[in-house]
Amino acid sequence: MMNNLIRTLMVQTPTVPGNLGRVATAIGNVGGDIGEVETVKVGHNYTMRSITVQVESEDQLEELLEAVRSLEGITLHTVSDEVLHAHEGGKIQMKSKMKIESIADLRRVYTPGVANVCRAIQEQPDKAKIYTSIGNTVAIVTDGTAILGLGNIGPVAGMPVMEGKAALFDQLANVNAIPILLNVNEPEEIIQTVKNISPGFGGILLEDIGSPHCFEIEERLKEELDIPVMHDDQHGTAVVTLAAAISACRSTGVNLKEAKVGQIGLGAAGIATCRMFMAYGVKQVIGADKSPEANERLVSYGGKVADSLEELMENCDIVIATTGVPGLIRKEWIRKGQIILALSNPKPEIEPEDALEAGAIYATDGRSVNNVLGFPGIFRGVLNAGVRDITHTMLVAAAEAIANSTRPGDLVPHPLNLAVHEAVSEAVERAAVVHGEKDGVYR
Amino acid sequence: MMNNLIRTLMVQTPTVPGNLGRVATAIGNVGGDIGEVETVKVGHNYTMRSITVQVESEDQLEELLEAVRSLEGITLHTVSDEVLHAHEGGKIQMKSKMKIESIADLRRVYTPGVANVCRAIQEQPDKAKIYTSIGNTVAIVTDGTAILGLGNIGPVAGMPVMEGKAALFDQLANVNAIPILLNVNEPEEIIQTVKNISPGFGGILLEDIGSPHCFEIEERLKEELDIPVMHDDQHGTAVVTLAAAISACRSTGVNLKEAKVGQIGLGAAGIATCRMFMAYGVKQVIGADKSPEANERLVSYGGKVADSLEELMENCDIVIATTGVPGLIRKEWIRKGQIILALSNPKPEIEPEDALEAGAIYATDGRSVNNVLGFPGIFRGVLNAGVRDITHTMLVAAAEAIANSTRPGDLVPHPLNLAVHEAVSEAVERAAVVHGEKDGVYR
Repeated sequence: MMNNLIRTLMVQTPTVPGNLGRVATAIGNVGGDIGEVETVKVGHNYTMRSITVQVESEDQLEELLEAVRSLEGITLHTVSDEVLHAHEGGKIQMKSKMKIESIADLRRVYTPGVANVCRAIQEQPDKAKIYTSIGNTVAIVTDGTAILGLGNIGPVAGMPVMEGKAALFDQLANVNAIPILLNVNEPEEIIQTVKNISPGFGGILLEDIGSPHCFEIEERLKEELDIPVMHDDQHGTAVVTLAAAISACRSTGVNLKEAKVGQIGLGAAGIATCRMFMAYGVKQVIGADKSPEANERLVSYGGKVADSLEELMENCDIVIATTGVPGLIRKEWIRKGQIILALSNPKPEIEPEDALEAGAIYATDGRSVNNVLGFPGIFRGVLNAGVRDITHTMLVAAAEAIANSTRPGDLVPHPLNLAVHEAVSEAVERAAVVHGEKDGVYR
Repeated sequence: MMNNLIRTLMVQTPTVPGNLGRVATAIGNVGGDIGEVETVKVGHNYTMRSITVQVESEDQLEELLEAVRSLEGITLHTVSDEVLHAHEGGKIQMKSKMKIESIADLRRVYTPGVANVCRAIQEQPDKAKIYTSIGNTVAIVTDGTAILGLGNIGPVAGMPVMEGKAALFDQLANVNAIPILLNVNEPEEIIQTVKNISPGFGGILLEDIGSPHCFEIEERLKEELDIPVMHDDQHGTAVVTLAAAISACRSTGVNLKEAKVGQIGLGAAGIATCRMFMAYGVKQVIGADKSPEANERLVSYGGKVADSLEELMENCDIVIATTGVPGLIRKEWIRKGQIILALSNPKPEIEPEDALEAGAIYATDGRSVNNVLGFPGIFRGVLNAGVRDITHTMLVAAAEAIANSTRPGDLVPHPLNLAVHEAVSEAVERAAVVHGEKDGVYR
């Protein structure tokens, strides 16, 4: 039995009868099966349809596509597999909260009624938190320089990631998230642009901005804006990593705060992870990176640097690796009783089986360590608390909430479990309320 | 029988039992009736509730508010009438299009699946139109310098207007509209900021930006961006004004293109209206304004300027006034058979009854002339057509579509009638497709 291929074709035909028939016949002639046909748009001149077809081989698919492409007046825009099909039309939409059904409704939510609301906010700016969506809206800001593991592919090619995050923000935490794609890369331009558009937002999530300019951008924006700012690739990742380490220590009976923790790889995530462990109370955090600047950066944040990878492996009870280099950790470096979190995706620094065979007490890769466990609840919590900053106290509270939601033996909880995100939000809000004034983060 | 007052109180109480009871008792003690009670947010320390109360007089309301305010540990955040109540929490929300229900869904719309979509766009940037929401998303950009008739009240106080427009964009044209509030006012800074964030949008609606800096901002952005840009207070208003004039001429049998049209008031809307009439084919358009710069601007666009208001009134068959000055037009200036559109809100330049009494053949004020008739369909049309500019040809087509949707005797159609917005969208798209290449507006 063949493994059938399913693809969705986005086909544009002239808006006159008979054209769908021509397309269907062309597909049938090469033995393709037609599934769903969805009309996406009927324009004045052209109609756009999404047509799902099933074929038995790549060769047959090529033949089918050629047959459609050769039809005169018909344009084959895209050929999508299941993943691409799920992205057609984008993943998010801005919706009105209410239905505007009468002139009375229109006068209430638009002119002239809206003028009273504007005046109320003009007189007491704080009322914008009640009468607008600003206090529940976060900008997801990227310059496209470090999209996933793909690198500097630009902000537009990174949009599917931003839309995915926005969709998760909605579903998991009822936060409005707006992707903001920047076509500037200089830190000063990015900082200024974000400041210029900041009045419309209750928080800023920096996303997939490359290292090292991400550090300056985040620090400056935290300093100069009076709304919470977080770079997810640093602190969001660090929160989930700390949560995973707490769970691993619970599984093995290791006392994390008294352990020596080694971080291999001091990019944005690695540095932030070291800082998060220190904030949690780990007394000895040791890092290693081949870049002297990265090592210096860790020292500037109060961390220690190992002389070599071997030295770090020999010294540390818990080793976390986020280098992106598959197989970097050799089996012979593993110490008996060590905890190994080799988190690089899709291939870890050492396969868990190899690490366990070499004597590790606990070993895992990064497949289940997903920062979606962090950012929705963290922002829900700070928006609820109305604080102007996100502190390490709040982030450590988030990591503990994630660890406390993890079933014994698991590394992290199920990322779509709403109870987890509520627990994170509540922990962050509580930390903000309890420590906020002390940390000077209230507005 | 008293005319009862209904108000909604936003009340914050400690999250411990018994506090709602204290509030309810205080309200009951002064004779207030409690209607709906909605729990808006349960936080760790505080609970926020929206409580609707009914009282018989302003005095009783004051007494009630005092009673609530005097309760210890309880904060009365806002007191809303029906209009303010409709704005609580804001009017728009960013929603996920799909429910993400399983790890398989998560892997499809977020990591790792999303990486394939990013790569597809990186290879062929045009695919962003299919696989992201960008091509269906418009930024509503304001610096808050000319909010409604309220003036320079700042972007945050203007947010309810932007949210109202975004809600209407969704409901009337299925366009995602994102308010962008700018805290800069210099044309150069505004232009640069909009350019910096433009990759995330398929169009830019400039909104409530003051005159004269709105002219430079719009012109520069139209020139320097490859997506459609429109300043609604100029061209959106002008489209609906032209539509109203076409309807008025049809009602009275006047040939608009052969008539002399006078425009009193050459602010952003007035200048744009003159240009729209010229683009429609009116041979004689005469303007008047007390500002010499405004008069010069009209001349630079090819219009003529009257020596005085009296001269304009004496010469023109159709007079449009958008000055914001109530009663500016004297009864004795009205000529027999003239058409008078005195559009300033809430008080017109001359009351329609007075103009008719003085001999006008047709007279109206601006209450029903609402630019919500224009912007949703205009942007739906240009986004459908995929053009990089909005031309006068397209805007005139929009005005004609509005006029053609108007019932005989009416000035404009019902603004919430979806068929009107579809007609506008189709007319704009058709004009774009037919004239696009000639006008050089295709990408």
